[in-house]
Amino acid sequence: MTRSYHLSPVPNLRVLGDHHKLFRTRGTHNNQIYYRLFSGNVTESTIYALSTSPGKAGVAVLRISGSRAKDAIRKMASIGEKQSDLKPRQAYFRRIRDPRTGEVLDRALVLWFPGPRSFTGEDTVELQIHGGNAVVKSVLDALGSLDGFRMAEQGEFARRAFDNDKLDLTELEGLADLLNAETEIQRKVALRQAEGGLRIPYDSWREDIIRCMATTEAVIDFGEDEQIEEGVLDQVIQDIKKLRNSISRHLDDSRVGEIVRSGINVAIVGPPNAGKSTLLNRLAKREAAIVSDIPGTTRDIVEVTLNLGGYPVIVSDTAGLRESEDLVEIEGIKRAKARQVYICLLSFAHLKTDKKDIHIDDVIRDVIDSTTYVLLNKQDAAPHLNPFDFAKKVQHETGACKVWSVSCKTGEGVDVFLNDIVSILKMRYDDSIASPALITQARHRHHLEECVQGLDAYLAMPAQDIVLSAEELRQAANALGRITGRVDVEDVLDVLFGQFCIGK
Amino acid sequence: MTRSYHLSPVPNLRVLGDHHKLFRTRGTHNNQIYYRLFSGNVTESTIYALSTSPGKAGVAVLRISGSRAKDAIRKMASIGEKQSDLKPRQAYFRRIRDPRTGEVLDRALVLWFPGPRSFTGEDTVELQIHGGNAVVKSVLDALGSLDGFRMAEQGEFARRAFDNDKLDLTELEGLADLLNAETEIQRKVALRQAEGGLRIPYDSWREDIIRCMATTEAVIDFGEDEQIEEGVLDQVIQDIKKLRNSISRHLDDSRVGEIVRSGINVAIVGPPNAGKSTLLNRLAKREAAIVSDIPGTTRDIVEVTLNLGGYPVIVSDTAGLRESEDLVEIEGIKRAKARQVYICLLSFAHLKTDKKDIHIDDVIRDVIDSTTYVLLNKQDAAPHLNPFDFAKKVQHETGACKVWSVSCKTGEGVDVFLNDIVSILKMRYDDSIASPALITQARHRHHLEECVQGLDAYLAMPAQDIVLSAEELRQAANALGRITGRVDVEDVLDVLFGQFCIGK
Repeated sequence: MTRSYHLSPVPNLRVLGDHHKLFRTRGTHNNQIYYRLFSGNVTESTIYALSTSPGKAGVAVLRISGSRAKDAIRKMASIGEKQSDLKPRQAYFRRIRDPRTGEVLDRALVLWFPGPRSFTGEDTVELQIHGGNAVVKSVLDALGSLDGFRMAEQGEFARRAFDNDKLDLTELEGLADLLNAETEIQRKVALRQAEGGLRIPYDSWREDIIRCMATTEAVIDFGEDEQIEEGVLDQVIQDIKKLRNSISRHLDDSRVGEIVRSGINVAIVGPPNAGKSTLLNRLAKREAAIVSDIPGTTRDIVEVTLNLGGYPVIVSDTAGLRESEDLVEIEGIKRAKARQVYICLLSFAHLKTDKKDIHIDDVIRDVIDSTTYVLLNKQDAAPHLNPFDFAKKVQHETGACKVWSVSCKTGEGVDVFLNDIVSILKMRYDDSIASPALITQARHRHHLEECVQGLDAYLAMPAQDIVLSAEELRQAANALGRITGRVDVEDVLDVLFGQFCIGK
Repeated sequence: MTRSYHLSPVPNLRVLGDHHKLFRTRGTHNNQIYYRLFSGNVTESTIYALSTSPGKAGVAVLRISGSRAKDAIRKMASIGEKQSDLKPRQAYFRRIRDPRTGEVLDRALVLWFPGPRSFTGEDTVELQIHGGNAVVKSVLDALGSLDGFRMAEQGEFARRAFDNDKLDLTELEGLADLLNAETEIQRKVALRQAEGGLRIPYDSWREDIIRCMATTEAVIDFGEDEQIEEGVLDQVIQDIKKLRNSISRHLDDSRVGEIVRSGINVAIVGPPNAGKSTLLNRLAKREAAIVSDIPGTTRDIVEVTLNLGGYPVIVSDTAGLRESEDLVEIEGIKRAKARQVYICLLSFAHLKTDKKDIHIDDVIRDVIDSTTYVLLNKQDAAPHLNPFDFAKKVQHETGACKVWSVSCKTGEGVDVFLNDIVSILKMRYDDSIASPALITQARHRHHLEECVQGLDAYLAMPAQDIVLSAEELRQAANALGRITGRVDVEDVLDVLFGQFCIGK
């Protein structure tokens, strides 16, 4: 038995003036959810924070949100006493004063965004001050002295936007991803989600299920009176079948959204002395946006994160082939191939060639098949060979998907190789990424699968179990509701808002 | 013979449409300044930059300035085609698109500040976008693709504000100091200067001198015709005398502005084993705003910068007393005393006490006088002594200005000591800092002294040398003009704008 309560304001309902609101408690009891409504004069604090990155700069933006936000303007910028003074969304250039002493702290642009037309849905004020350390500190201190004001916690602005129904959970996740995005593709996917790319279909599916559920429950209540049209349950079954297929197709996406969000794995394997370190170093230096360079813990995997044509790519140097006698390892390599771009790095020295044939060790040949890309390194060490012809021969001999010849030492051929890799990524992922709704988190997938299970259970239910079948639909609808945050999401919220900076 | 030219637009003069401006060349030749005016269609680039601190954050602000700034709104935010669409200083929440592809890059607040009512005096646009790395990069890239747009150089926004007469040189220096301010007092002094604290008196003094000069030149031209009132030159002499005294009083400020700008020196001397390192470490840990911890090069001076009651304080641990046999050193200590807060750190062990007297080495006694503060350390090592009584005895014996007893090891007494130091700083500096015009740079002092020299030379000139005396007044006026940037300041500008971040 678990039991938890959460107090949150009911959006768009204000009674008895500014500080009187309708609140709800949400309780769970053995996984059942209960709500209780009450009104009260629980005053929520007005919160403030630095919304731009800390550190010396020309400009710093402070945001203030809450029912008393306007006090900051009245008491610190000497405007807003009369309604006509202060136009919404108009920038005023004003002196900012300490409300305790009247001392001038800075000159700033002041903007007023009355709720609900603001990010949080609450009254919001923005101060654009000079980005010096002492200036920012003095204005933050002054805000803290105002009655009912306190510094925002991490993600608290976003949390209030959620509580006030300005954004659903997937849109907030998209926003967090947008702030974290390091490459163009990540930005694109995150922005689309932040603009409702997932909310819109999920809400619509959930409404469809709820409509079917309502019909089913109407049959339960009134079925015997025959006030319900005949065939209405058959229609529900047809609708649910269609819906189930839509969700199932949506799930069948090769996890492209999740892969792009966390980075596409490009695995490099190869025998010792193939030049893996030189290759990694060259890639790391060539591409500006290196995010990490983590010495892994498992079998000495080294990872370099690159921005290749807007795709976030994690190039890992696995010790795979060195331990190639290990059959489990070979099996692991084979399984991993389907998921990632798999490059086998060999050096010219690893291939003995006579006039007709190229001799390749069995252990190497074993990991090369039609899904493997082969990179021949140390082309500089074999000036007597034509690199292009030799690459073609190796491709013919091994049946590899593609073979490049490069010199990681001199850099020759590396640009061509990288351009080709970008093309490969585009071919693999561009179509899926163009899809308006992209599952970007395991959490989404989990609840979508729950939803499909509920729908399947409904469809498998004998017709006489109509009460139980309605319950399956309810579970399916709730699964979707959990993705968008319509139901029971406290646990997810804490994780999500922890990802935001203070000030968002 | 030196010769230099500088091309700059003449403020508030536009001819032949937007891109036709009146320009001037300024040439110098043997320290004489020449101007030449011409008009041309030299197009100044529209510049853009990130104005907030780089790094992941909720919000990032991009600023755009120049004659084509509105293009950014039209082409990227799809507003401003019609004049009525776009109200000045109004925040619009819009999608930002890549002007080349139409792809949505972000959703942003867009603000339009038409010149001359903007920081630079030019048409200015502000974009408030999400502060993610990929988002900022994509919008900056998109701006760079617009015709006539380029990334701003360091301090280029400030430079344009200066060229367009929005701010004079002292105000810009104040602004740079404001962004660099680490403590409350630094912020206060910088803000006052940025708001014209120096510009206003210097411009007024310069106008006074120019008026006197004009009168003198009128006498030169018309004196013989007796069209000039009698006694007019006597009045000029009286005015210049008064002015000279005002400037002289302004110069007689104990360099408080310069000291506060760069940090107040608190020197700590003391014999070996007095606990200087322990004291420095305790101060460094106690006060949050440590700016630097520089191991000096001269005689192993270690500096710790603290924020004490809003004052920037540089505590330095000098090796002075260790080398106390060196007479030059003792002399140096004595001279430095007048300029800085001088604390002699002794430990209890350095003082032998019997019932009546305290014995102090001559070498220590030598550096203690009525301007010295004495800090007795290691109070914990002498639990049999009453620290307060003992401190009083030491003060009586040495004639020191004040004596504290502390234990840097346990921290006892350190808070009292620090509070007292803050009071001492306030007593020394608060009055001077309250003065509305505070000289904050050696550059100001240098030109003010030049000005006084010019006025003195004028006053010392025999009455018949009227032509030469007018020239002295011109030199004096130019000296003031150099402070505010009215004349001949190219060399100063390069240094000044180098202090700004890109984006300001």
